[in-house]
Amino acid sequence: MFTYETSVKLHDTDAAGLLFFAHQFTLAHDAYELFMESIGESFDKIINRSDYLLAIVHAEADFKKPLFSGDHLTINLTPQHLGNTSFTLIYDLRNTDGVSVGTVRTVHVCIDKQTRKKKPLPEELRKALLGRHQ
Amino acid sequence: MFTYETSVKLHDTDAAGLLFFAHQFTLAHDAYELFMESIGESFDKIINRSDYLLAIVHAEADFKKPLFSGDHLTINLTPQHLGNTSFTLIYDLRNTDGVSVGTVRTVHVCIDKQTRKKKPLPEELRKALLGRHQ
Amino acid sequence: MFTYETSVKLHDTDAAGLLFFAHQFTLAHDAYELFMESIGESFDKIINRSDYLLAIVHAEADFKKPLFSGDHLTINLTPQHLGNTSFTLIYDLRNTDGVSVGTVRTVHVCIDKQTRKKKPLPEELRKALLGRHQ
Amino acid sequence: MFTYETSVKLHDTDAAGLLFFAHQFTLAHDAYELFMESIGESFDKIINRSDYLLAIVHAEADFKKPLFSGDHLTINLTPQHLGNTSFTLIYDLRNTDGVSVGTVRTVHVCIDKQTRKKKPLPEELRKALLGRHQ
Repeated sequence: MFTYETSVKLHDTDAAGLLFFAHQFTLAHDAYELFMESIGESFDKIINRSDYLLAIVHAEADFKKPLFSGDHLTINLTPQHLGNTSFTLIYDLRNTDGVSVGTVRTVHVCIDKQTRKKKPLPEELRKALLGRHQ
Repeated sequence: MFTYETSVKLHDTDAAGLLFFAHQFTLAHDAYELFMESIGESFDKIINRSDYLLAIVHAEADFKKPLFSGDHLTINLTPQHLGNTSFTLIYDLRNTDGVSVGTVRTVHVCIDKQTRKKKPLPEELRKALLGRHQ
Repeated sequence: MFTYETSVKLHDTDAAGLLFFAHQFTLAHDAYELFMESIGESFDKIINRSDYLLAIVHAEADFKKPLFSGDHLTINLTPQHLGNTSFTLIYDLRNTDGVSVGTVRTVHVCIDKQTRKKKPLPEELRKALLGRHQ
Repeated sequence: MFTYETSVKLHDTDAAGLLFFAHQFTLAHDAYELFMESIGESFDKIINRSDYLLAIVHAEADFKKPLFSGDHLTINLTPQHLGNTSFTLIYDLRNTDGVSVGTVRTVHVCIDKQTRKKKPLPEELRKALLGRHQ
């Protein structure tokens, strides 16, 4: 499990006064970005210095509690369903009281940049995901 | 069915060169916003001059084709599962060739602003959704 | 002068109920993107099929009137200060009453992708800008 | 001076591979939000439990160096031009080498929520700004 601490910023909210729903996906993706950096697979490396990309093919979220500007969030990221060419990430968002306020799930597929076909996950990434597998 | 024409803007993309996944939700929500305006239930009215709000409790998306800055999109919105206090919207995103490049699904629950409890959907909204029900 | 019609979306606002200030720059940039497309210089072409890029080196905005979700906007874009390697764009945002609600100014410099040095503006772009020069 | 540590996220970049210019304003605003929280004037308090708001009437930025996804940023915020009803904030963005990569300036006016007229800055805010005044 990888943990990311953040907070809801004013620009994450909308005129209804709460977190705009799509930004829950963005905050979860920030956790994913820092997780990848922590295992030596930064997005900068994947985008500019690798032969593969990790395409998100499915994403979903549940919204359990309203979130306001300034709310602190702990996002716990857990890999699931680690396959040959794909993996799933589960994100649990908790407030300062430790209450789960929302969840996100993203499904990622490894794609060859040249052929645009699925390809096996890089071994380092597989190991890092396995090490944190639920 | 309600149709919204838009295009992928540069700020919808990221350094991987494609639409950032969370923005597919935002583009779908733009269609929802214009749909609501078209039936006389603008967000401004709901937020500032009504006793209810429509909370998104679940959202999911499939990403079928890469989308690039400048790509034109037709988003078709269809109501589904119209209940007493909730409804679901399905969005189908198509490119200029008419090919489905992605889908979004959002589940909305009507909440009383005072009590924060579920309440029946306003009759006008129910009728408008029913008129476009799949 | 190039004109772009749009509206303030819910995700452009924040919990204070108004347009989040940074999004005025984004809306102006959308006008710039469509202007470039209209003169055959789409961002997709510049990013993927050209030897130059147009870097924004300065941007500023004045905020004259509050803008709310659903507000319709007419953005008028006018080139100014067309130099050898740079140009300035002025954007005037008007509401449905024709009242100016805000302005944006962006300064763009043409950069060689290889050397990262300034280079003269492409002739087609220069002509297009000159044709609409104030 | 107030210091905020952050990093450029993938969603802050666009298909040109760099930070999308408008997001430099957003990152600076995040620093402002955390500064306000640090002095007991959180946006949540101002929006929901005060008789005033702080409207941004002008914003400008210089973009000195390209910023990429994953780049760490130190944002130093300094108040300037503290007036009776307004103040200016200067933000200096530095990379991990301590090099200034960009600046932002925002001008804020204190507005009475009822009358929508300018009003004097709250005393606590004035003191906090003065304590950090350049």
